[in-house]
Amino acid sequence: MTTTDRMRAVTVADGKVSLVRDFAKPVPGEGEVLLRVQRAGICDTDLQIVRGYMGFRGVLGHEFVGIAQSGSYAGRRVAAEINVSCARCDMCQGGLSNHCPNRTVLGILGHDGAFADFLCVPERNLHVVPNEIGVDEAVFIEPLAAAFQIPRQIPLDKRTKALVLGDGKLGNLVAQVLKNHGCQVLLAGKYPEKLHIIERLGVGTELIGQLRRVRNYGVVVDCTGSPSGLSTALEFVRPRGTIVLKTTVALPDQINLAPVVIDEITVVGSRCGPFQTAIEALRTKRVEVVSLIQDIYRLSDAPQAIEAAAAAGAMKILLAPDESAPSIKRIRS
Amino acid sequence: MTTTDRMRAVTVADGKVSLVRDFAKPVPGEGEVLLRVQRAGICDTDLQIVRGYMGFRGVLGHEFVGIAQSGSYAGRRVAAEINVSCARCDMCQGGLSNHCPNRTVLGILGHDGAFADFLCVPERNLHVVPNEIGVDEAVFIEPLAAAFQIPRQIPLDKRTKALVLGDGKLGNLVAQVLKNHGCQVLLAGKYPEKLHIIERLGVGTELIGQLRRVRNYGVVVDCTGSPSGLSTALEFVRPRGTIVLKTTVALPDQINLAPVVIDEITVVGSRCGPFQTAIEALRTKRVEVVSLIQDIYRLSDAPQAIEAAAAAGAMKILLAPDESAPSIKRIRS
Repeated sequence: MTTTDRMRAVTVADGKVSLVRDFAKPVPGEGEVLLRVQRAGICDTDLQIVRGYMGFRGVLGHEFVGIAQSGSYAGRRVAAEINVSCARCDMCQGGLSNHCPNRTVLGILGHDGAFADFLCVPERNLHVVPNEIGVDEAVFIEPLAAAFQIPRQIPLDKRTKALVLGDGKLGNLVAQVLKNHGCQVLLAGKYPEKLHIIERLGVGTELIGQLRRVRNYGVVVDCTGSPSGLSTALEFVRPRGTIVLKTTVALPDQINLAPVVIDEITVVGSRCGPFQTAIEALRTKRVEVVSLIQDIYRLSDAPQAIEAAAAAGAMKILLAPDESAPSIKRIRS
Repeated sequence: MTTTDRMRAVTVADGKVSLVRDFAKPVPGEGEVLLRVQRAGICDTDLQIVRGYMGFRGVLGHEFVGIAQSGSYAGRRVAAEINVSCARCDMCQGGLSNHCPNRTVLGILGHDGAFADFLCVPERNLHVVPNEIGVDEAVFIEPLAAAFQIPRQIPLDKRTKALVLGDGKLGNLVAQVLKNHGCQVLLAGKYPEKLHIIERLGVGTELIGQLRRVRNYGVVVDCTGSPSGLSTALEFVRPRGTIVLKTTVALPDQINLAPVVIDEITVVGSRCGPFQTAIEALRTKRVEVVSLIQDIYRLSDAPQAIEAAAAAGAMKILLAPDESAPSIKRIRS
């Protein structure tokens, strides 16, 4: 950590990731708070951004926990919603600020992110992280909130037969959320070791290649991150069922949409979700995330960490700008 | 009309349409009724079938009105639901017989259709057509029911700002249904003369090329019949809005689905709908269909009629197996 007006930051531009050691430490603007980053998570969206998604240039990172350095939360541990909205447009006024057309998004769209020693965030985006949630766990508040968006969008109950496609971090969190909502959940993936992680949490799993080709799932959630995810979901969803798309795909998809019409399928796009719900689920241990962490890298080793996160079968890789923070796993050195 | 065991029928096989003059007159099976066809309509789905969609071989035609020749409706004018379901499977028992996996579909899937002097249909598929509905109008019961499926699937009210894409028959019917539900409706199409038809019914219209590119429609209904319909809809739907897909496209679509996720769009496939609602709307003249009829051809001229229906900008073409039925328009001779 630096105490000067310079800091370390991991930037991306034109597909090139750089560790910049003399990046200008940001200065909070009106309504903003300076945060010191304790821990950040590398998300598949970050990997897509590195490959050109959103054309983003700047400091990467949107999953993180930090200590507020100013404002009314000064000294407290906080997580931050990633959409920085204008608070004035029709969407914001109508309670849909996550869809503000004027928004920037931390580490994704027009706003520097959290793979750095510090970042600035509007104070209204902050949520205090209770002490019961460990620093490594707190990084999962953002992706877990995204998983909790699903029950806000579609009805789920004990009769819901749900299939989650994808055994990555998001698929795991979605399966846990659906299970907590009483659904009969099956998660299908490609990696036996990842399936074991979710099995230990009491969710049924199957290798996708061995899944019986029956179209009888009322809800199928695509967390594959693959352009073919929707096509696969259409092979399993029952007529009149719902497919939830969770992963933004960087490449155009090629798909025959006739089954959507013939079988009257509903396809629901689902993105960011409720932070407070995620915080409460982590605080009460109703969702388990520590088993998803593969490794923790020093911020200075971010390029190698991003490479490790991009490897086939990788689980969550965290970055530690503040190496003095207590950690569940050993920081890779 | 023939009184022998032979009849005329318009068949399709491997992309070839044939008028067969000595087709075997069908014999009703258990629970079935023989119908004499009075009038039938050529639908875009028929044109797609001629081009290979569904791989259908048999007698074409699923929009029609006829006179029951047997059963408890004998002598009465009837329309028929097109899905012939098994009445035994989970879908049928659950009230979703239109999605019965064992179903056949009149003129579309494994069941001869209505471009013929006679056809057989299960008696439970029949609906009596009231006298207030003319024979030509009655052909629209099936496509109008499909339009009425939309308010069964998504909430619509006076605050709904709806855009209908496509100025063909289905787009016209959908726009009328949405208007009757109080929505603020705009229909966008390619043909000024078709836009005039819908304008005269009090629905706002615009040439698609001149439509202002703003993403502020809560509901966009794709009735274009084009593989690019969904992409176009995504240009106009607001974040958190709903796209209704009404037309089955024969070709695979190429589309970037990231906006569906980022903007949390709901895409709803919509197919067959409630016959009784459509019959009531036609009986009470709340929906107008006569202005959609371009021409009525004799059944013997079906190949030419199908060619006329396939021409760019064509409106509804009807077929008249029974030329003695009273007609709103003169039958082409």
